[in-house]
Amino acid sequence: MTTKMFLSEDEIPRQWYNLAADLPSPLLPPLGPDGNPISPDMLAPVFPMNLIEQEMCQDRWVDIPEGILEILYRWRPSPLYRAKALEKALGTPARIYYKNEAVSPAGSHKPNTAVAQAWYNKEFGIKKLTTETGAGQWGSALSFACSIIGLECKVFMVKISFEQKPYRKTMMQVWGGKCIPSPSSETQIGREILAKNPDTPGSLGIAISEAVEQAVSDTTGQTRYSLGSVLNHVMLHQTIIGLEAKKQLEKFGEKKVDVVIGCAGGGSNFAGLSFPFVNDKINGADIEIIPVEPASCPTLTRTPFTYDHGDVAKMTPLLAMHSLGHSFIPEPIHAGGLRYHGMAPLVSQAVVEGLLTPLAIQQLECFEAALTFARTEGIIIAPETSHAVASVIRKAKEAKEEGKEKVIIFNLSGHGLLDLAGYERYMAGALEDHEMPQDDIDKALEQIKNNPKPAINKSGKW
Amino acid sequence: MTTKMFLSEDEIPRQWYNLAADLPSPLLPPLGPDGNPISPDMLAPVFPMNLIEQEMCQDRWVDIPEGILEILYRWRPSPLYRAKALEKALGTPARIYYKNEAVSPAGSHKPNTAVAQAWYNKEFGIKKLTTETGAGQWGSALSFACSIIGLECKVFMVKISFEQKPYRKTMMQVWGGKCIPSPSSETQIGREILAKNPDTPGSLGIAISEAVEQAVSDTTGQTRYSLGSVLNHVMLHQTIIGLEAKKQLEKFGEKKVDVVIGCAGGGSNFAGLSFPFVNDKINGADIEIIPVEPASCPTLTRTPFTYDHGDVAKMTPLLAMHSLGHSFIPEPIHAGGLRYHGMAPLVSQAVVEGLLTPLAIQQLECFEAALTFARTEGIIIAPETSHAVASVIRKAKEAKEEGKEKVIIFNLSGHGLLDLAGYERYMAGALEDHEMPQDDIDKALEQIKNNPKPAINKSGKW
Repeated sequence: MTTKMFLSEDEIPRQWYNLAADLPSPLLPPLGPDGNPISPDMLAPVFPMNLIEQEMCQDRWVDIPEGILEILYRWRPSPLYRAKALEKALGTPARIYYKNEAVSPAGSHKPNTAVAQAWYNKEFGIKKLTTETGAGQWGSALSFACSIIGLECKVFMVKISFEQKPYRKTMMQVWGGKCIPSPSSETQIGREILAKNPDTPGSLGIAISEAVEQAVSDTTGQTRYSLGSVLNHVMLHQTIIGLEAKKQLEKFGEKKVDVVIGCAGGGSNFAGLSFPFVNDKINGADIEIIPVEPASCPTLTRTPFTYDHGDVAKMTPLLAMHSLGHSFIPEPIHAGGLRYHGMAPLVSQAVVEGLLTPLAIQQLECFEAALTFARTEGIIIAPETSHAVASVIRKAKEAKEEGKEKVIIFNLSGHGLLDLAGYERYMAGALEDHEMPQDDIDKALEQIKNNPKPAINKSGKW
Repeated sequence: MTTKMFLSEDEIPRQWYNLAADLPSPLLPPLGPDGNPISPDMLAPVFPMNLIEQEMCQDRWVDIPEGILEILYRWRPSPLYRAKALEKALGTPARIYYKNEAVSPAGSHKPNTAVAQAWYNKEFGIKKLTTETGAGQWGSALSFACSIIGLECKVFMVKISFEQKPYRKTMMQVWGGKCIPSPSSETQIGREILAKNPDTPGSLGIAISEAVEQAVSDTTGQTRYSLGSVLNHVMLHQTIIGLEAKKQLEKFGEKKVDVVIGCAGGGSNFAGLSFPFVNDKINGADIEIIPVEPASCPTLTRTPFTYDHGDVAKMTPLLAMHSLGHSFIPEPIHAGGLRYHGMAPLVSQAVVEGLLTPLAIQQLECFEAALTFARTEGIIIAPETSHAVASVIRKAKEAKEEGKEKVIIFNLSGHGLLDLAGYERYMAGALEDHEMPQDDIDKALEQIKNNPKPAINKSGKW
């Protein structure tokens, strides 16, 4: 009775899938400070040109360089599991599958793009990457990739996470990365924020500003910035997950998928699994595709599609996305990777186009789902992943009520072995639900009410 | 360029290998309090009869029940890796392979026997298992297995580890296990020790005594005790590692193995990889087989082969093994899984028979090896595993000096994601080497000088 499905290295996808080629309306461009679309040159101090080209690429398929595949082979193709024990516990006729991205050395899907970005930077002659990290998954993934590929790596870690999760910092150091708490005194923006508010817990928006500032201010030109989510090329690199999954489902004998689920913070884990299925949906397949976000940071479910910056200091271009405002600081829920004010433009636009069905869930239901998963499937998942599992359990129960043999697949984005403090607090009854009140959302959106609005598209959908 | 090798589920070994069938001299039996070999009945309050039979079994091959395989399939066959990046960094002509047991849900090789033991207990009608744990690997593995199979699980965790590693306890709780610090007030022996020394840090020997006492004192007869190493049936269950590895090496095109390496605490991880190769050696193959222990707990390298108890309270039978004395409390080095006073009788006897070449290494060299491994192969290994890697690096350098294309294989027994405190302290320069002074060894051995001695065998080797 096969419960897991591997692919051989020969069967690994050799091209990434680019949803930008298939969206019903053309993908909206990022805007510069003057409100006009930015040119590749304007991004050159931040990213290497090969990645800028990829960011703007409209081709449906992009070749994966052999040098990247050779590193991905260390843990890819990742296994696809049939969750038979979970199905049995739920008594559902649904067949539940999950792609296990926790098998990577850093323990999540993040190395898929970390390796690609480090590789392209190295090709371009760059010596050092700067980045930010919230919960620490991305910072450790990039430290891992830089260690293997031979780049320096510097990570600005949101101060409160730096203090609460010291072992993430240790992981980065083990791989030779430098990790400092943000805001720091190493950057102009960091010093300004510390002067105003020395006790700030920091935020992802602040950390991004610091990392970008440090990259662009290296006068040798050998430093660039790297982002772990949101951008088009990041989504692109993650599609290897869904492309593998489709081959594996076929080997399991599944001809049709009914529901595709992933948690969504910046969007990369969700996009990685789902975009190849979004393509099927665009081509007429009947699939429900669900990005799941925390109710305390409800970007997709409760904010308008608008233009906003990716960081506090407005160093990034304006991106067309769902956003709670670039200076929004979310509640300290345990799924740190889902606490971002914005959302990938590709995911945001797919929502507006009606291709996705976003859902917000509160954290107690998520942790309960995580315990159910650990006690059936045996894997202790990340708090981020628990949002996907909570949605899967809802869907599996629906299928039971309807008596339908639905096929559900979700992305197990990472393990929770460095997030056990959250489990501890949940089991001790010390966690609470938090749904964002409408007043707070209105207040958050106030700061971006004058931002440019995406022009209405042909279908009149925004 | 293949760097990892999977096997399909069809290729999983369907029998465990029992070294007891092939040792040059018959395996010495455990002795009861009267100095005579114990009968199966005497063990019946502690273990279920199906496992007692397995403990005393002399058959070379033992069938693996289908019910156990179905659970092992969740992560087995585990991948065998070629460590090309490490080879390159060392500039060695050696080809280095490692079996990655970190892919199990609990993160180590321990679930291989935890699942088997829980399954046999369930078959026998048992409802609850008690056990002890030092660093926490075994306690979490048994909690995982009991959760999947449907047994209650209670873990006595050495108090100092309970306090220093709170997240191991959380892991056990996530899987529904109960974990309490040892010594506890729940047992007679625990209360006695606490009365004498309320501030004791505890030891594995004490925790074993408590777990055994609690199992045998359940008057309903529905509780048994489970041990994660040392015993013959535990070694047996782990041999699936080496049996898989041999098939995988063949697929890599390797016809001959020169060196087999594993870290050794109680012996199960070492035995799991090495015993099938020990069989080859008994049959004439030229293989160097190295159990690596910490210099601060040098059981195999610096103690005599004798009879000793497995626990402080002398509740276990006398086992023929290398031992530092059952009340020995080792230095608090970070490889908690290697801090046991004794060693599996099968491993001990294989050493005396000249089949193994034990080695003791100090912890700084081990942590340095772990950093080298993380920065080349990308995996953050457990401090226990680092002992094997340190030995591998020595052997690879030797091969370089000799200009020989040696084939080296080692067991990556587990990941170090819950042991990052040790890495942190190493990188901060806060760790020290500790080699046990001869005076301390003499003192430790004093308490067991009157224990029975194994009778001299035919070859005159002990």
